[in-house]
This record gives sequence, C-alpha cells and structure tokens, in this order.
Amino acid sequence: MSYRAPVSEMVFTLAHVAGLPEEAIGRADAEAILSEAGRLAAEVIAPLNRTGDRHGATLSEGRVTTAPGFAEAYRAFVEGGWNGLAADPDHGGQGLPQLLGAAATEIWNGANLSFSLCPLLTAGGIEALVAHGSDDLKARYLEKLVSGTWTATMNLTEPQAGSDLSGLRTRAEPAGDGTYRITGAKIYITYGEHDMADNIVHLVLARLKDAPAGTRGISLFLVPKVLPDGSANDLRCSGLEHKLGIHASPTCSMAFGDRGGATGWLIGEENRGLACMFTMMNSARLNVGLQGVGVAEAATQRALAYAHERRQGRAPGSAEASPIVQHADVQRMLLTMKAYTAAARSICYLTAAALDAARGPEGQAAGDRASLLTPVAKAFSTDIANEVTSLGVQVHGGMGFVEETGAAQLMRDARILAIYEGTNGIQAIDLTSRKLPLNGGATVRAQIAAMRRTAEGLLKSADPAFGHAAARLRAGIECLDRATSHQLAVLGSNRPEIALAGATPYLRLFGLVQGAACLGTAALAARAALAAGETDPAHRARIALARFFAHNLLPAASGLEVEVIDGGAFVDEAALVLAQ
Amino acid sequence: MSYRAPVSEMVFTLAHVAGLPEEAIGRADAEAILSEAGRLAAEVIAPLNRTGDRHGATLSEGRVTTAPGFAEAYRAFVEGGWNGLAADPDHGGQGLPQLLGAAATEIWNGANLSFSLCPLLTAGGIEALVAHGSDDLKARYLEKLVSGTWTATMNLTEPQAGSDLSGLRTRAEPAGDGTYRITGAKIYITYGEHDMADNIVHLVLARLKDAPAGTRGISLFLVPKVLPDGSANDLRCSGLEHKLGIHASPTCSMAFGDRGGATGWLIGEENRGLACMFTMMNSARLNVGLQGVGVAEAATQRALAYAHERRQGRAPGSAEASPIVQHADVQRMLLTMKAYTAAARSICYLTAAALDAARGPEGQAAGDRASLLTPVAKAFSTDIANEVTSLGVQVHGGMGFVEETGAAQLMRDARILAIYEGTNGIQAIDLTSRKLPLNGGATVRAQIAAMRRTAEGLLKSADPAFGHAAARLRAGIECLDRATSHQLAVLGSNRPEIALAGATPYLRLFGLVQGAACLGTAALAARAALAAGETDPAHRARIALARFFAHNLLPAASGLEVEVIDGGAFVDEAALVLAQ
Repeated sequence: MSYRAPVSEMVFTLAHVAGLPEEAIGRADAEAILSEAGRLAAEVIAPLNRTGDRHGATLSEGRVTTAPGFAEAYRAFVEGGWNGLAADPDHGGQGLPQLLGAAATEIWNGANLSFSLCPLLTAGGIEALVAHGSDDLKARYLEKLVSGTWTATMNLTEPQAGSDLSGLRTRAEPAGDGTYRITGAKIYITYGEHDMADNIVHLVLARLKDAPAGTRGISLFLVPKVLPDGSANDLRCSGLEHKLGIHASPTCSMAFGDRGGATGWLIGEENRGLACMFTMMNSARLNVGLQGVGVAEAATQRALAYAHERRQGRAPGSAEASPIVQHADVQRMLLTMKAYTAAARSICYLTAAALDAARGPEGQAAGDRASLLTPVAKAFSTDIANEVTSLGVQVHGGMGFVEETGAAQLMRDARILAIYEGTNGIQAIDLTSRKLPLNGGATVRAQIAAMRRTAEGLLKSADPAFGHAAARLRAGIECLDRATSHQLAVLGSNRPEIALAGATPYLRLFGLVQGAACLGTAALAARAALAAGETDPAHRARIALARFFAHNLLPAASGLEVEVIDGGAFVDEAALVLAQ
Repeated sequence: MSYRAPVSEMVFTLAHVAGLPEEAIGRADAEAILSEAGRLAAEVIAPLNRTGDRHGATLSEGRVTTAPGFAEAYRAFVEGGWNGLAADPDHGGQGLPQLLGAAATEIWNGANLSFSLCPLLTAGGIEALVAHGSDDLKARYLEKLVSGTWTATMNLTEPQAGSDLSGLRTRAEPAGDGTYRITGAKIYITYGEHDMADNIVHLVLARLKDAPAGTRGISLFLVPKVLPDGSANDLRCSGLEHKLGIHASPTCSMAFGDRGGATGWLIGEENRGLACMFTMMNSARLNVGLQGVGVAEAATQRALAYAHERRQGRAPGSAEASPIVQHADVQRMLLTMKAYTAAARSICYLTAAALDAARGPEGQAAGDRASLLTPVAKAFSTDIANEVTSLGVQVHGGMGFVEETGAAQLMRDARILAIYEGTNGIQAIDLTSRKLPLNGGATVRAQIAAMRRTAEGLLKSADPAFGHAAARLRAGIECLDRATSHQLAVLGSNRPEIALAGATPYLRLFGLVQGAACLGTAALAARAALAAGETDPAHRARIALARFFAHNLLPAASGLEVEVIDGGAFVDEAALVLAQ
C-alpha cells in the first residue's frame, strides 16, 4: 500500500478553512496541480521510501551516494518544475501562493520524508538569499536553486552548539578579495553531501575575528561545494550519522577549511547572521510542520488499509471474523489519527495563508498572525505526527513491530520532526515568550476571537449532527483564553520562568483548540454544501470528524489549562527531585 | 551511562505503597537481595544491551545464535539462583513473595529487555505447568525450568490468529501411546530457538481432530525441543523477524511436524487449552507491565544523566551556559518521566502484592483485586513506557535521534510492550468488560475507596508541601468514580459497544488516578519519616514528585472522564468516516 495524496480533502481545506483566494488561483487549477503532484509522489517518490530506509545513504572517500532511485526521482522532480512552485517568477519560480506550495510540500513528505528533506532545505536557502543576498550572489545562485538544479543546506549546529548557537566556533577571515576563508566543523547537516545535484550551496554560520561574543557575533556565509571557476571548494563530508530514522537522508558531519579555508561570501551584514538565519527558519518551521502532516497522513492511510483487510474477532452482530476496522477500539485509534491529521493540516495551511496575506492589503497583521501560528504549526503537527505514527504501529498489532510492514519506519522517521528546526520545547518557549506579547497581546486575542466566531456558527446552526461540538468548542476556547491571560500576566511578573514551565502544555492547548475550531469551520462548510444539494459523502464524514474531535480529543483542554495555570510551581522543587 | 537499579526507591515503594509484609521478608533482607540483583544487572546484563541491539540474534541452519555475551550472562543469572526467586521451594524455588519477584523482574528489564524476555517466558511456562501439568510432566520439567537450566516459550500466534485465537489451525493427533503428534506453523515465538540452554520447552496451542470450532476446541501441549530420550523433536525455527526493537531477542517462526509430527504431551484437559493459557497470561501481563517500568526507569536515568552534563543556554541568573537540567521545559520532561515511572512501579507492585495476599487470609478478595489491577498494570505501565522513552529521546535533542546515544534504542525496544501479551486495547476491553463487573462492581468500588482514604490523609495533614495535591486527587477520584458508574451502566444496556468505545480512555483514567493515589501514599509515608527525624533528602523529593503528579499530570483526568462518558457516540458514525 503506497501513499496517495488526499487531494480533494486538501483542496477543501485550502478553500474553506485556509481561505485560498479565488483570484490567486482557481480551485480547479489548484486541484489539477495537486493531482499532478500526487501522481509524481505516488508513482516515483513513494516507492523509494522503503528501499531508501533499507539502503540508506553511504559515504565513501568523501562522496555520498544516495539510495537507489533517489537521483533519478530528484531529476524528475526538478524537471517537473516542482521545486519553484511558490517561488518568485523573477527568479524562475511559478509565483503560486505559499498556501498551494504548502499543500505540495505535504504531498512530497507524505510520500517520502527522507527524499523531501532535500528540497525543503533548498527552500530555506532560497529564502535567505532573496531576503539578504547581494545582487551578485542572487544572480549567481538563485535561479539554479529555484529550479532545484543545485541544492542548499543550513550549517548551524556544532557539537557544543545545538539549540544554543552562542557557543559557535567556526571561524571566518576576510581573504582581502571580498571573499572569506571559512574554517570549522559542523554536524547534523542534512544533505550536506549527495549525488543528486552538481553543486551544493552551503549556508554557514561562522564567527569573524574580534566579533562580539555570543549570538551577536555570528555572520552568515554562502559556501558552495563547487566554486564559480569550477574547482572544488575546501570542504568535505567527514561522516554520516547512524540514525533512528530518515535513513535515506544523509545527515553529514562537515569539515570546512582542511586545506587553509573554504571560500565563502557574506550574506547580509557582518555579525547579523542570526537574523538572516531566522528568516529562513520561520518558513522551515512551517515546512517541518507540513512534514508532520504528510507522515501522519501516510500512517493513517496505511493503518486504515490494514484495518479493512485484517480480520480478527467478531464485531457485534457478525457471524464470522470481522475486519478490525469494525471494532470500537480500533475505530477510536483510526478516528484519532484522522482527526489529528486534519487538525494539523488546517493549522499549517492557516499559517501559510497568513504568509500570503502578509504580502497583500492585510499586511503586518497577517504577518504577525503567521508569526503567532508558526510555532504551533511546527510543534503541534510534529507532536501529533509522533502520536499518529505510533497509533499506526498499534493498529497493526504484532505486524506493526515487524519492519517489513512499513508502519514502524513511519514512526522512526517521524521522530526527528519534534527535534530539528528548533525542538518543540523551543517552539513552545517562542510561542509564550515572543509570540503572545506581539502587539500587546492583540494578535493572539484576534486569533481567539476568530475561533469564537466558529463556535458561534456551530451553535447558531443548532444542527444535531454536530452533537455537543459547539459547547465543547466554547469551553475549550475559554480554557485557552484564561491560559493565555495567565501566561501574559506571569511573563510580565518577576517570575517569568513560571510561564516557561507551562509553555509546552500551553502550546498543546493552543493547537488543540485551534484544531477543533478549524474542523468546526470545515464542518460548517460541509453542512452548507449539503444544504446546497451536494451529495459527496465526504461532507457528512467531515461533520462526523469534527464532532469526534470535539467529543474525544478536545476535552483534554481543561486539564491542559490547569497544568498551565497551576503547574509552574515545580520550578522551585525540581532541583531537589532531579538531583543525581 | 549504564542502568543502576533504584534499590532504595524500590524498597520504599515495596514497604510503604505495596505493603510488603515484614513477616514475609524483612526490609533489610529485601534490600540486600535487590542490591545483589542490581549488581548482576549493572555489571553483566546491562552492558549487553547496546551490543545486543547491534548484533541481534542470527539464524543459520535452523540454529539461533544469540548476541555475544548473552549465553554467558544467562549462565550467571541461572547460577545466581535468580530464575526461581519467587517459585515454590517444592520445585526448587526460593519461595520469596511475588512482590519481591516483581521488583527483581523490574531490575532485569531495566538492564536489558531483550535478555530478560527469556526468563519472563519461562516464568509463564512454570505457572502453566504448576497449575495444569500432570505429575509426570511436573517431575520431568519443573525443576529444570525453575532453575532456568531449560527455558520455556508460549506458542499461540499463527499468521491468521493473533489477538483472536479462534482461527487457530495447528493440529494435534493422539499417537496412541499417550503422546500427541503436533503439526503446524507458529509465528512471533519469543526465544523459540536459542543457544542459552540445552532444552526449550514449547507450550503449544493446537486443535484436536473433531474438536469444537472456535476457542472451545483448543488444547495445550508441552512440546520439548529435545525429547526425554535425548533425540531432537520434529520442530525447527524457520525464520527470525526483522523488528523495530528488542533485536537481541529472537522472534521465531516455528515449524512443527515437518517430518510427520512433533511429539507433545497434553497439559490439562483436551479442549481446555485456552483456560490453561490464561493462567500464565495473567502473570505474564503483570511481568510485561514491569518491563515497562524497567525500561522507563532506564530511559529516565539516561536522560537525567545527560541533562546534568549537557550545557546549552543560560538558566535565569546564570552567567555561563547551564546544564540543561536547569531549564524549566527540560525539568518538566524529566519530572514527567520520573513521576510516570514511579506511578507505574507502584501499580505493578500493588498488583503483585494482591497476588501474594490472595494466598493468605484475604483470599479471593485479594485475588479479585489482582485481576482488576492486572490490565491496568500491563497497559498503563507500557503506555507510559512509550511516552517516557520518547521523552528520553527528546531530552537528548539531536543526539537522541542518533543511535549511538542509546536513547533511541530504549524507545524502539519499548514499543512492543503495548502490543504483545494482549494489545493495550485488549487490556482496556478486559478491564471494562470483565474486571469492572467482578462481584457486581464491589471490587472496583473497594479499590476506589482505598484511593479516597489516601486523599483524606493528604487533606488531613494540611501540609503546605503537598500543594493542591489533596484537592486534585479528590477531584480525580470523583472523575474515576463517575466514569466507572457510566461504564458499568452502559455495559448492562443494549449498547455495550459504547462502553468498549470508551475502554481505552477509561483505563488511562484508572491508571492516572491510581498512580496519583500511590504517589500520595508514598508522600504521606515520607512525611511521617521526616516527622520521625529521618533526614534522607529522598523523602522531600517524594513529596515534591507527588505534588508534581497531582498538579501537572492528574489534571488530564477530567478530560478523560468526558471522553469516556461522552465519546462513545462515534461508533455510529465511524463507518462513514473510515470508509475507503
């Protein structure tokens, strides 16, 4: 059973939850594009997922060979023009909305996380270059990166500098000709070396001599594998990590400057590298959220197919062994998988839509909304990706623990998502300490107000098909509202660390309520479609799924509120319990 | 960093939460025995955990070779007399309480899940033989199994018969000399073939000719690898599974009767095999719960050590990079790991204590209590094992995803625990449909009443160190009480499947509240010890951990109650949402 892009569900969410503007792209065009992406994903990229896991990428004499079929599939991806889908036409892109690009990103990752990491990194590089690169660098690199002919990497982490980049030691020295000599070692560099493209454009954080200590002394450099004159730069892959998952994605240790210094070009201003890196991190974080949605969808499809096929026990009223999809406990697992996946998809699409809107008349307010939603999109989607892929293993029973089935690989692959691009704990701290205070709290309040409008819509409809969804959603929103006030108040107190102690349950609460509101919006749209005479059974399924979310998953909101408001006291006793 | 048995915490829990009777074994003796077990675990068994994962077990010409060191370590385990710790002295055991045996089981599994599965299976075989074996079979096999010289297996599963054994196809035919000829194929047979013992005693479920269809036509047979005359029986290992985890534990496909039929002896009566198997399953389920406790403890120790060592970012007031154990979000993860592990340990020990008490004056009431608690001990402990080992990866950040660190292995190994010995969904159904109705609900009511006494104790103490723990525990108990009434009422209605739909959240609610009550009991005992002048800082840590559990984990109870009571309606719409 291979991954199939859920195109009609995606288009419905784009249109009715995220509000894809008809003037940007018509719905039929969106559907056609995503169907075409789905075809490439199903026929070319997804079939490489299991073999990629088994073969992995291999390093020999400094060269990384990717798993069989990867280079050919990447060529097909580039030739199809998929890499530049949402990029600026001035740089060779197709100029489609970020929102459509987000849906396509979900598809590639649903098919194969390892494969799709390569263009995901390139997208970050493009963004940094567009925002901060000199005209010269743009002219030299942008078109090749937008087409995907060349790929990009992010070189941040060093052994002593992971989440905290202030301890960075990689050095940069001006060479006197406008270039810099880069020397140092980096780790965890995704696709730092591979055989899928002729050149790899490394974006490297390094420290200039006499730069201020800490993160204010870090600069960003473009360091290509192949120099403009065609010669090899002074850099190499010195090792590959042996990882839990995403085996086909080479995670490289990189050595820069073994022979005197790799040649690099400054991106942006000296000592402003972290700001440049943050530019690319925001979209990278949304993209990692979309990876979570993709792998959760893949796990759900696989478990659902198995549950329809596997027969064990008798469902009530059955005379013979029933497909396990008919057992209530299996249904609960599958509905949980479907509901979380749909919620995470909605949140990621909302975030992408806000990025698009930030370039239109709404401007800064939409940009702030995107900033608010980004850590939720990243962390909630990847947390549920871990949960959903684990449920996928559980639905398979003993078969789920056997690697041949493929369910276990999805769980292993998904496990990195909550860690890289800023751990989910860091996302939670970002949400509480930087995003809630945006505009004095007005941004988060506006978002909560939008959720309230959905709850009122559900209530006003008084449709018995919604069950208690309206009341549950209202209750959940009040939990979120009170927890938000608490976090903002404590942040401004003399014990801000108490707010950080509650940051993770707060983010979960936000994602849960936002997800329930999104499914409520979808259910209202489905109801309207039924009222208008549409007969697609998917509409009734959307209403039932929103109800399941409200009845079976959203009730966790009240406990999360208590944990946020009452739980922070542990910081005063943690040292006692955690002494060794 | 290797596993260290948390002996003083274990003994405190044995004494003050599970109530190890002083007349059965003195506390100092218990501590001495567990310390000795801890030494063997740390010095011999734990060091094989990583190498076992890498090497795995290998099959060649029907022979399985275990990973380097396993056979020698098993010999040391047998020579130390550990296999028969809690077995009857009449069969060569040491006759110590099940409760002490449970603590030892936790230790072996904390050191190495793969290794410890071998004696765990043998324990099940001993139990079945003791309860149902003929005198002749007992005389021939029991002493060797109790000492561990020979090992045992459980042969239940076939490709088409997993959770549902009614479809079993393995055949048994009387040979006319009191033995039977067994023919068929089994899968997922743990330690079905290995090189750690001279003989392997297979307990095999099979169907006699003309037996009734379904589970009432299944009989249990003892089928040894080596026959009493020293010749090889007609059975072989036909394959090993390639698994997500527990690589060092050989999971065998077994072929019986390639050359006309393996020789077997009936255990118990014809067609009563399932009842015999259930005897061994109950204790096996508790032991799997203890596996969860062990691996959760190991993951917690590893994460805690890493968090003390790894420096990233500055904690409030620090001038330099701080150990990450000082960051609130990391503290939240580590405290969650510690609290869940302590709760699961307490529940498993309570269950073992009830098994001991069932043989004493309390009799059947204690036996019923053990029956009630067994599915909770199995499922809650293994669910939290998945969560705790995953948090262990998260605490390690990027290093957690790299296999060399060891955190990922614990997560992979733990993943089987919620699946085998009856999936956790089956445990939840067992709790709701068979255990709640015990004695018309009196067993579960008595258990809830015991939790209430702890809440009252906390309330009466009015110790500010407990925070809101008393109030939270009372609220949690009321959630459990209402959810219990709901499940019992719905079970007796014409829609019992609604109760099954809520079985999993109900089990989680039960485990959560029972765990909170146990930690409350421990906190009260710690408070008494402090009042009596003891100065061990572990006492204050126990109080703080109970408070953390009540403030930060127990609040989930209210949402779980809603899910149990309100969530079951999905069974009427699931087919719509889960159509393919």
